[in-house]
Amino acid sequence: MTTHDEAQIRELVDAWTRALRAKDVDAVMSHYTPDVIAFDLAPPLQHDAAACRRGLESWFPTWDGPIGYEVAELVISAGDPVAFCRGLSHLTGKRTDGSTTDVWARVTVCLRKVGGRWLVAHEHQSVPFYMDGSLKAAVDLKP
Amino acid sequence: MTTHDEAQIRELVDAWTRALRAKDVDAVMSHYTPDVIAFDLAPPLQHDAAACRRGLESWFPTWDGPIGYEVAELVISAGDPVAFCRGLSHLTGKRTDGSTTDVWARVTVCLRKVGGRWLVAHEHQSVPFYMDGSLKAAVDLKP
Repeated sequence: MTTHDEAQIRELVDAWTRALRAKDVDAVMSHYTPDVIAFDLAPPLQHDAAACRRGLESWFPTWDGPIGYEVAELVISAGDPVAFCRGLSHLTGKRTDGSTTDVWARVTVCLRKVGGRWLVAHEHQSVPFYMDGSLKAAVDLKP
Repeated sequence: MTTHDEAQIRELVDAWTRALRAKDVDAVMSHYTPDVIAFDLAPPLQHDAAACRRGLESWFPTWDGPIGYEVAELVISAGDPVAFCRGLSHLTGKRTDGSTTDVWARVTVCLRKVGGRWLVAHEHQSVPFYMDGSLKAAVDLKP
C-alpha cells in the first residue's frame, strides 16, 4: 500500500459521502464502476448500477433537507490495483413523512484502480438483526 | 490479478465454508488475520477475532447436525497483496429447537496476502431489511 493510494481512497470516500449528503445522484454514481454490485440496506439481495441509480432517485426525495451521512472508524487497505475499506456509517436527518432517522450501519467499500483512478466496484451496507425471534433489524445500535 | 491468486482465494473460500459446515471453530478461525473485523448477521455492529470465536462457539451448538452453507455467484477481484470477493450465501439446516433455517444472505470477504498465503482480514455478512415500517430482516429473499 502506498500513502498516495490511501489518500486517494480517503478523498473518494469523502467525495462520495458529500454527494450522498447533497442528494446528487450523478455525483454518487460517478464513483462507481459500470459493473458495480451493491448489497444495500433495502431489498433485493443485490443491485446493479441501474438499480443503484433508481434506488437513489427514489430514496433521496424521502429526506426533508440534506441527509446526514458520516463514515466513522474508516480503515483502508490498498493494494495494486485492488483495495477495500470498512467503517461505520451514521445516517441522520428528517424525513418528508415527519419522522427522524438516526441509524448506525456497517459499510464495506471495495475498489479497483481504473486508468489511474480508484472506483467503487462493490459496496456492502447493512445493519445486523436480532436473533431473539423478532428478526428485527438492529437500527438502534451505537459504536 | 493472477489466475494463481484467484485459484488460491477460491480454495480458501471452499475450505472456510467446509469448516463452517463441519462446525470446526479452529478451522474457521485459521483463515482469519489476528486483526480481523467481522460485520456479522447478529449484533453488535462489529466483532474482533475473540468475539468471532465466541460467536462461533455459541452458534454452532444451536444446529442439529451439520450446517448447510454454500456461497453462490462468487466473484473474486485479486490484486497485490489485497483482494476482495462477494457472493450470495445460502444457510440451511435443522436447529436444536426443532425449527429449520433456510436463508439467503450477502457475503463480502476482504483478504490480505501474508507470507504468501491469503487470509481474511474483513468479512461482512448481512440480509437487507424491509423499509415498510416493520423493520423486519429480509430472511425470505431468493437470488
